[in-house]
Amino acid sequence: MAVIVDAMGGDFAPTEIVNGAIAAARDGIEIVLVGKQDELAQFPLQGLSIQVQHAPDTIGMDEHAARAVRKKPESSIRVASALLKKSPGSALVSAGHTGAVMASALLDLGRMEGIERPAIATILPTTQADVVVLDVGANVDCKPHQLVQFAHMGAAYARNVLNVSNPRVALLNIGSEPAKGNELSLAAHALLKESGLNFIGNVEGDHLYAGECDVAVTDGFVGNVLLKTTEGVSHLFQHVIAQVAQEMGEKARALGPLLAKLERFKTTQPNYAGAPLLGVEGACIITHGASKAETIKHAIRIAQRFATSDTLNSIRQTGQRRQGDGSNA
Amino acid sequence: MAVIVDAMGGDFAPTEIVNGAIAAARDGIEIVLVGKQDELAQFPLQGLSIQVQHAPDTIGMDEHAARAVRKKPESSIRVASALLKKSPGSALVSAGHTGAVMASALLDLGRMEGIERPAIATILPTTQADVVVLDVGANVDCKPHQLVQFAHMGAAYARNVLNVSNPRVALLNIGSEPAKGNELSLAAHALLKESGLNFIGNVEGDHLYAGECDVAVTDGFVGNVLLKTTEGVSHLFQHVIAQVAQEMGEKARALGPLLAKLERFKTTQPNYAGAPLLGVEGACIITHGASKAETIKHAIRIAQRFATSDTLNSIRQTGQRRQGDGSNA
Repeated sequence: MAVIVDAMGGDFAPTEIVNGAIAAARDGIEIVLVGKQDELAQFPLQGLSIQVQHAPDTIGMDEHAARAVRKKPESSIRVASALLKKSPGSALVSAGHTGAVMASALLDLGRMEGIERPAIATILPTTQADVVVLDVGANVDCKPHQLVQFAHMGAAYARNVLNVSNPRVALLNIGSEPAKGNELSLAAHALLKESGLNFIGNVEGDHLYAGECDVAVTDGFVGNVLLKTTEGVSHLFQHVIAQVAQEMGEKARALGPLLAKLERFKTTQPNYAGAPLLGVEGACIITHGASKAETIKHAIRIAQRFATSDTLNSIRQTGQRRQGDGSNA
Repeated sequence: MAVIVDAMGGDFAPTEIVNGAIAAARDGIEIVLVGKQDELAQFPLQGLSIQVQHAPDTIGMDEHAARAVRKKPESSIRVASALLKKSPGSALVSAGHTGAVMASALLDLGRMEGIERPAIATILPTTQADVVVLDVGANVDCKPHQLVQFAHMGAAYARNVLNVSNPRVALLNIGSEPAKGNELSLAAHALLKESGLNFIGNVEGDHLYAGECDVAVTDGFVGNVLLKTTEGVSHLFQHVIAQVAQEMGEKARALGPLLAKLERFKTTQPNYAGAPLLGVEGACIITHGASKAETIKHAIRIAQRFATSDTLNSIRQTGQRRQGDGSNA
């Protein structure tokens, strides 16, 4: 089992990506770095469990994902996903263009049978345990039964990767009563009740951060707004803290323990950097474009855990069950 | 001009509501308190510019808004909105059931001509100036042209109440490029470009909190998720700060200046407590159900500013323009 790393994707590629991979390799993880051979030859990879797979092309952050992925089969992300296809049981990590990672995975690995829409999940901190939220951007307009599939996939990830024994699944909504919400959430609520999952009902954004559920499902538009709003409010707090620290001058040293604790809540920080792509035939982790080496190392560890867990099998069963019963709901 | 206050609405009614009204009256604002006469008679209202209007009934937080409002014409919120109808130029404040306030306003005051959907706006802090976000819960499923009306209403409020001279209007979306988003946001983006407003394009949740726009429009489902997520992340930070403070023991006094500064960001705190209901024939401010006296006093001030500004006229013109040109978009 190896973790295949897209060395050219991300704002700080390849340096921070490669340094993260080196750190992971030192921890005993087998790595395949995919990218421009000459650039990767600059790094001290000797004596480590790191192979290099050449990919002459790259995909920029501002390119049109689907088009770029088709036009550039030799790009690092395409070569990485093709390699994962040939190495079942391995995993992939990329800090590149999210849409391109998604499109490559669909093209090279394919959707799981019976899964209509792969989704991107994110792991967020709460006052209690972490929560898996999906979809956070892959699917902007969703059907109710797709949210049910997201729920199954998120629960599979929570159970197998985060070790939550009977994940409490909730529907992100704007009120706790079943009769609250928009057309999509009303219909999804009814289906989730019959899903066989440990469905605990609706959850609002404030209760989500109080740790009231282990998995929260929503469409990719709302999920992405939740994610970006979280980043925005988090930056706002950090801005205020920095302002106060400046005003405190010397005395700001007293804020040290607080700042250390808050590191955990920066969404680009190691603990919350690994967003699994669920519903494709392979263990893919997308990390924040601004990821530094520490985050990449963490994402590689998560990817390893994802690939060696029973998550993919579990999601495959969800898809097959759906095919089997011929259900459309 | 008086501010009509629903004395029975809110988690801490009537005590905190009445105390807030007393504080506002001491600042020279004329108040009409609406609620149960015998309960209100317990408070020291003598010598203040406060009248009492009896309303024998109340609407609880868990009642069905539309039904309760129709069934209880003698409820405090219904009596208050009927009174506002008879007192053009006055304003209304309620910390009660949001849906009931909305339904009462629609029933007693009515929608403005040409405005399809009244909206609830909220004023949020950013690292720069405040931002008006709407809709945050009145309309869960919206049409693109309704978002354009929200934009006009939000801009009118920003201009007239917050004194922003040429408000930068943005569409809350999940990417800055015009081609990003779901069906609703793609269509709304195209219409907003032609709206005559100072439309600056899409804004994401993180950029919103960096102060990149003065008004952000979205449908009530997404807006409510944004609002609740903001509350959730804010509580999470406060939870962490409280934890650290406990660990610091004596030394936690050093956190004082920070805690003071953060007060501003609690959404139930005075500065961000007044959510205007826009698009009905009257100046209505809805405050958080958990509002205490300070917040109520602030909301009363905001309501006064709203009612004495040109906001209602300005929104009326938006509606009339739309009627005038027979446009459906």
